[in-house]
Amino acid sequence: MAVDPQASLVITAFDWVPDFARGFVRDLRPRWACEEIGLAYAERLISAVKRPAEHFRDQPWGQVPVIDDAGIRLFESGAILLHLGERHPDLLPVDPQLRADTLSWLFAAFNSVEPMMFELGTVTLFAAGEPWAELRRPSLMAFIGGRLDRLATALGDREWLTGQFSIADIAMVTVLREAQDTDLLTERPVLAAYLARATARPAFGRALAAQLAAFGDGPPSPTQHGETP
Amino acid sequence: MAVDPQASLVITAFDWVPDFARGFVRDLRPRWACEEIGLAYAERLISAVKRPAEHFRDQPWGQVPVIDDAGIRLFESGAILLHLGERHPDLLPVDPQLRADTLSWLFAAFNSVEPMMFELGTVTLFAAGEPWAELRRPSLMAFIGGRLDRLATALGDREWLTGQFSIADIAMVTVLREAQDTDLLTERPVLAAYLARATARPAFGRALAAQLAAFGDGPPSPTQHGETP
Repeated sequence: MAVDPQASLVITAFDWVPDFARGFVRDLRPRWACEEIGLAYAERLISAVKRPAEHFRDQPWGQVPVIDDAGIRLFESGAILLHLGERHPDLLPVDPQLRADTLSWLFAAFNSVEPMMFELGTVTLFAAGEPWAELRRPSLMAFIGGRLDRLATALGDREWLTGQFSIADIAMVTVLREAQDTDLLTERPVLAAYLARATARPAFGRALAAQLAAFGDGPPSPTQHGETP
Repeated sequence: MAVDPQASLVITAFDWVPDFARGFVRDLRPRWACEEIGLAYAERLISAVKRPAEHFRDQPWGQVPVIDDAGIRLFESGAILLHLGERHPDLLPVDPQLRADTLSWLFAAFNSVEPMMFELGTVTLFAAGEPWAELRRPSLMAFIGGRLDRLATALGDREWLTGQFSIADIAMVTVLREAQDTDLLTERPVLAAYLARATARPAFGRALAAQLAAFGDGPPSPTQHGETP
């Protein structure tokens, strides 16, 4: 595992989240990237329940991850993946067209696939049971399905989005995992196999274990519940 | 205007879109970036009504823009902005922390602000009048408002997101324009002023004029309506 309290790269993550979010908080992305290239990182854990006021200066939405890489600070997991990718060609190739493909797919994950996963999360989780959410669900599922059909066609019989594993796959796979409790992936064997292939990588397993290990055993004490996350 | 049919950079855009989309199609982003640095580009116009089948090989969702920069091909406007930014420090600074800030805000526009604008577009335009959309609108507007409050706080009294104009501002401003027909910006003078400041730039004006000039005078003939966009 690449966690090392002395590392010059520091990833900020949460010290506790509800069960449904465990394994899905977005610091999984930089953890996974670090594990792929054996880059040591230290953890800085903050409360998701009572977020430090100063955290909003590092991350305008109060979310995680943010990183401090030997004094260079970044927020947004896409920007962080790009920054880490520039440290190692195994994550972001230097060949011009391969690099261009990787950047295209990186943004595709964040701007053309994840936005609809956000809406899926609202409909199936945060607003579950509300009348509008039930009414919206069928058209949303159809819309996402159409987009995922295009993704499956684009992936075709390749192992990874650009042909070789990269930060674009870390992004897209963590986005697709957000739909893993629906039929959207099982109905599309190309994508289900892609997800299984990616999450079978030892680096993914170590990253997931590290995120889970960072959460305490129980929920925070009631006195910590001062602010809604 | 930077349009030059002989340029080695080619931006693919649509030759016609409905009135409501004019001035908002995403090839505006690379056009604006090119205008800021005086980089000549050629246009390649395709039909949005009957999209060429081979276009889906260049752009998995069948959208625009895509670019071909002397043989290097990219899709997704975020990836294209990043690629163009790397051609000129006026768009993407080389100072490490400024570059990190620019990347962070670039992804913030595409992954933390635009996703809710997509949902706003669905609720107010594409699904307008549907019962679920009317029920969803209040909570969505409140959610977007909270996010924009955070953005206004982060921007503060700075002129641009990182202090100096960059691809991050091209991204964020074109995202905010998607809400310009609502009260979301007029209720937040910091953001309204930011939008006004950005769209007053001569380069923005030239980019907008170039996109509008590319559309023909009228709608496509009925025989071209073979496929729903």
